[in-house]
Amino acid sequence: SAASPTNNSVGGVGLGGYGELHFNIGRKDQVDFHRWVLFIDKEFNDNVRFMSEIELEHSIAGEGKAGEVELEQAYIEFDLNDTDKAKAGLFLLPVGILNETHEPATFYGVERNGVEKNIIPTTWWEGGLAYTHTNESGWAFDTAIHSGLFVPTSGSKAYNIRSGRQKVGNAEFSDAAVTGRATYSGMPGVQLGFSAQYQQDVAQSTLAETNDATLITAHADIERGGFGLRALYARWDISGAAPAAIGADEQYGYYIEPSYRFPTERGDVGFFGRYSAYDNAAGDSSSSKNAFFDVGVNYWPIENVVFKADVQFTDYADSSKDEEIINLGVGYHF
Amino acid sequence: SAASPTNNSVGGVGLGGYGELHFNIGRKDQVDFHRWVLFIDKEFNDNVRFMSEIELEHSIAGEGKAGEVELEQAYIEFDLNDTDKAKAGLFLLPVGILNETHEPATFYGVERNGVEKNIIPTTWWEGGLAYTHTNESGWAFDTAIHSGLFVPTSGSKAYNIRSGRQKVGNAEFSDAAVTGRATYSGMPGVQLGFSAQYQQDVAQSTLAETNDATLITAHADIERGGFGLRALYARWDISGAAPAAIGADEQYGYYIEPSYRFPTERGDVGFFGRYSAYDNAAGDSSSSKNAFFDVGVNYWPIENVVFKADVQFTDYADSSKDEEIINLGVGYHF
Amino acid sequence: SAASPTNNSVGGVGLGGYGELHFNIGRKDQVDFHRWVLFIDKEFNDNVRFMSEIELEHSIAGEGKAGEVELEQAYIEFDLNDTDKAKAGLFLLPVGILNETHEPATFYGVERNGVEKNIIPTTWWEGGLAYTHTNESGWAFDTAIHSGLFVPTSGSKAYNIRSGRQKVGNAEFSDAAVTGRATYSGMPGVQLGFSAQYQQDVAQSTLAETNDATLITAHADIERGGFGLRALYARWDISGAAPAAIGADEQYGYYIEPSYRFPTERGDVGFFGRYSAYDNAAGDSSSSKNAFFDVGVNYWPIENVVFKADVQFTDYADSSKDEEIINLGVGYHF
Repeated sequence: SAASPTNNSVGGVGLGGYGELHFNIGRKDQVDFHRWVLFIDKEFNDNVRFMSEIELEHSIAGEGKAGEVELEQAYIEFDLNDTDKAKAGLFLLPVGILNETHEPATFYGVERNGVEKNIIPTTWWEGGLAYTHTNESGWAFDTAIHSGLFVPTSGSKAYNIRSGRQKVGNAEFSDAAVTGRATYSGMPGVQLGFSAQYQQDVAQSTLAETNDATLITAHADIERGGFGLRALYARWDISGAAPAAIGADEQYGYYIEPSYRFPTERGDVGFFGRYSAYDNAAGDSSSSKNAFFDVGVNYWPIENVVFKADVQFTDYADSSKDEEIINLGVGYHF
Repeated sequence: SAASPTNNSVGGVGLGGYGELHFNIGRKDQVDFHRWVLFIDKEFNDNVRFMSEIELEHSIAGEGKAGEVELEQAYIEFDLNDTDKAKAGLFLLPVGILNETHEPATFYGVERNGVEKNIIPTTWWEGGLAYTHTNESGWAFDTAIHSGLFVPTSGSKAYNIRSGRQKVGNAEFSDAAVTGRATYSGMPGVQLGFSAQYQQDVAQSTLAETNDATLITAHADIERGGFGLRALYARWDISGAAPAAIGADEQYGYYIEPSYRFPTERGDVGFFGRYSAYDNAAGDSSSSKNAFFDVGVNYWPIENVVFKADVQFTDYADSSKDEEIINLGVGYHF
Repeated sequence: SAASPTNNSVGGVGLGGYGELHFNIGRKDQVDFHRWVLFIDKEFNDNVRFMSEIELEHSIAGEGKAGEVELEQAYIEFDLNDTDKAKAGLFLLPVGILNETHEPATFYGVERNGVEKNIIPTTWWEGGLAYTHTNESGWAFDTAIHSGLFVPTSGSKAYNIRSGRQKVGNAEFSDAAVTGRATYSGMPGVQLGFSAQYQQDVAQSTLAETNDATLITAHADIERGGFGLRALYARWDISGAAPAAIGADEQYGYYIEPSYRFPTERGDVGFFGRYSAYDNAAGDSSSSKNAFFDVGVNYWPIENVVFKADVQFTDYADSSKDEEIINLGVGYHF
């Protein structure tokens, strides 16, 4: 989670982490320690703190290796008063459900859903400044100005949103972006979120034309008496002739995920189903929507450890890619 | 060591580590901070804990760099009762002496012995499940089911065991493996270990033929009144025509290492000798055994810090590679 | 800083860190989380400790990625008595101002000065042994024997000092080096330092000729009543026909940096100017000196957090490269 310092601290320094090991059994059988993450934070004083998150993806990083080491959060946060705070540095953008909160015990399914991966595109961080205001009625407002995407403009990934993440490593900064979010959490077990982002040119001034891009998202995350419901919609509109020519001027996705969680003598068990669909080339008439149906179970022997099993049935635009995948996983956070 | 949480903990989170800097002076003169390691663990409660080990090898990792970052342990362990525990995640396999316990102050010699490197192949971790039962007579039994090796099937490293480690990073999982170990530590200063592993196909179903593989190991680690003796034998048998054609159907190695350690006013000193030999192509009549004689000294100014010096005399199957190497090292753990 | 264990410790293990995010706006607009660093140390007892520093540069490390993970310090330090200590391992060389102390809140300017980057070449670490003696009159003396540079001997980076850093990762060790430093800090707010290094062959015996190299540096770092002055001079002399042929037999640089820092109700503010110049090919008559004028401001809302802004005006030997760069940054340490 992006927000709170870990409670494992001494001298104001906190150390936490999370991780998840995945087994995927389908056309390709694979095992992967997908993420191993450390949180390191420091309370400088009651009003100023440092937060950071560093991740080793795919277990091994180096020349010719499958994985990488990534800095996903590293910012200074200042409490300005009881309702306002500001941060500066590298932070997770305030969009969607998973982007800021993705510890494995907090969500259903071994793998993250494809909508928040390919449309939002989670995990998504940028460098810049952010400001949060919270009021007593349960609304919170975030605004941020930050570095922007730099999408490829040719090739098979042209205008692909996920491929535009630069991850703040010697990143192009000709065109910044702004993001706003309103969140309502004024009723027990209910969170509603609405985000919008604007960037003047996701091609970072490398083309003769300008590709301005707008993202809007809305989501609900509801938990009541064991019943849960997550729903999310996200959509990009990108201007210019180049994305329009390949249908990438409109990209969207949505999912709905009902669930039910209940306690047992040896921990909690939860079942879920999820229908999700996304389309990274929705701007033309050719068929390019990918849809997925997932059903599965989470088992939490203790609050911070989870075992997961699910089955995914795919309905790709390219039906030759369709498959059924069994996923097994174990995850933790502290 | 794989087993115990570090004692440097707060809020249940422990932080430890080890490392070793090596100087090798032979045909090639080299300096290398071979390993810098962190242990991070969390006691969730009295019966559930997370253990992890992350390593930076060769001091620098990235595109075009000598080293890499590796996740070598990351698992959840559950105490089931006083004698039984289970774990799930990424863990070190229970084989040999060094694979689970390789902090530099615990062994003699700057570099690890070639048998546990090329036959076992230490450091060796996989993803899966493990179960341990300990009884009062000093015996402990480990069983594990986990991801398996994926050896190359052509080229100079064909059926080379060490080259088959996938390190749980987007790893092929068509064929899993099972490992069992019996350990006896019922007499002071004596540890005996016997391991066996079976994998149905170390080529992971990529060939028309099936290369099932069996590893057996036995070791003794004895310390009595300053005198020490370590001895180990390990052997692989791999089925199929392809490994047999290059002699890789049988691969084995062994070493014996007497030592003597004594206290001085300024820390402990220990001397050792070691004869070791291994052969990764013992299945045919061509000469392919490599043998080594090492002699050297460890100096421990304090228990957790060690300075090492040794000389290695090599007897390679390819005698043109023979050399004498002087090794110097400093290591620590906490 | 190289010297003191962090004060965030439990069980003798300390955890600290620093980091800096940079925005550079010039010919190329760029954002980069330039450095994210952890300090991990362990007090084994009152007289023996382990110190280490590990860094993620450019936010993301792996195959094809911009950054890298580097071990910059990892050594054991022994207090021999009240005035003498020794260390063994991988350590920062005792030269210049920034090489040992480079936390962002301790210096002016978003980017480090080019003299300590291209001549010294900071950050510079090697593996070996070091000894420090401090006397009551305010002088301290460091001597070290350690692994040496291995410069390229052909191409555009031939005999470039910065390109000779091997970073102790499987590094060539044919030719070691020795470094000495005298430091005076006997007057409040005054530090003077003088260093010298000698290496018999910076080409590490790969050429028919021998390129012995001598570095000398001198610096002053003075703070009095808000006024500050940093000045540094460093120079390399390299023997042999090959470096002489391209003017690389003499390489030098210097800078002077006056500043003024004052408190406000909301933290400290400091202004600085800096003139710096360096030449990596000063041994011939061709023009190869690069000079820079920087002016800027630091704002410290709290002692360990800094925001920086500066402008750099360049005067390259190749005037076609000249530009004005605006730099913005945020940094912290703990």
